[in-house]
Amino acid sequence: MVVENGAAEQRRAQILSAAAAAFLRRGFHGASMQDVCREAAMSPGSVYRYFRSKEDIIEALAERDQAESIELLETVRGRADAFDALAELTDETFARMTPSECALNVEVGAEAVRNPRVAAIVRRYTDEIAGTIADVLRDARERGRIEMDLDPEAVARILMATLDGVRMQRALDADLDMKTQAEVFRTMLRSVLRPRERRPSGTAE
Amino acid sequence: MVVENGAAEQRRAQILSAAAAAFLRRGFHGASMQDVCREAAMSPGSVYRYFRSKEDIIEALAERDQAESIELLETVRGRADAFDALAELTDETFARMTPSECALNVEVGAEAVRNPRVAAIVRRYTDEIAGTIADVLRDARERGRIEMDLDPEAVARILMATLDGVRMQRALDADLDMKTQAEVFRTMLRSVLRPRERRPSGTAE
Repeated sequence: MVVENGAAEQRRAQILSAAAAAFLRRGFHGASMQDVCREAAMSPGSVYRYFRSKEDIIEALAERDQAESIELLETVRGRADAFDALAELTDETFARMTPSECALNVEVGAEAVRNPRVAAIVRRYTDEIAGTIADVLRDARERGRIEMDLDPEAVARILMATLDGVRMQRALDADLDMKTQAEVFRTMLRSVLRPRERRPSGTAE
Repeated sequence: MVVENGAAEQRRAQILSAAAAAFLRRGFHGASMQDVCREAAMSPGSVYRYFRSKEDIIEALAERDQAESIELLETVRGRADAFDALAELTDETFARMTPSECALNVEVGAEAVRNPRVAAIVRRYTDEIAGTIADVLRDARERGRIEMDLDPEAVARILMATLDGVRMQRALDADLDMKTQAEVFRTMLRSVLRPRERRPSGTAE
């Protein structure tokens, strides 16, 4: 199989988007490869060049979603002010919570519960994301920017859990007031991390 | 259909437990009514006396799960010290988070995304639970027990989201350190609500 790289990637992304739409309507188990092909407006032969089975597509979707979170997070790592960066990340994360993205997230979670390969993908990325957030928190604590007493890894996991839970509520309620939810989340972040005001450099405590 | 009430309730509960086990293994869509009958060690005739379809069972399971949360919450309402009661509730809630309970929770969430009747059940109970928690928070604030500045309803929803998210993580990771998770959650609760020390009655501020 020889496919030009850029075009192949584009085709693959197109199939994944079509599959996401088909899965959202009928669930991973309710939707067939035929539904995916119809949604992508591609022949089964073309789709099978990229994915051998529905399970392959599900795994690729799980990878895609988690990779997006990692990518977002990478923009924060190494930023001078890790705490502000995290708050910014919150806004970006909430902005990305469209009802359909959230519904797909729930679907991936449910599939992971039953499918060990999907579970492995989700756990691998969860560990990586939690690790990165924990690094950011540790770094901010060492620089004296926050005063958190808790285990950074555990805090990272609870923050991720909260976002997952908000996604679930959002998937069920397109009218959920996301602005207020984001505000409460930011306040929670601020309460738990207790960021200290930045002083002009050279000023003693 | 004449069934003695206590026995009927018991039978119904037995079928629901069997169905939960079958659904956990194969998902709502993967499991058949036959799987449920086999798991319950009952004939299809007996099972159909209580539930006309798999969809009926799924709805009853969603009702059962949400009703348990409401019941737990009712023990808190009207308690003199609403904040302490909420903290206690946290411990009880985390203690109930067995991997299989959590997996079922995720499955119900995913089903709700696609099934408007299940969605209606989940939303109804979510609204009721959020309303009760918001009442408890408002009451605690009025009594001067907490100093929360945020909208009680929004805080209630974020807390529920966090618990749902922890359930999702737990469903995927039986080794998740629940003691630490519960501790971080309690600290978060304390940071956001800022409970004030209770003073001996009659003592002025």
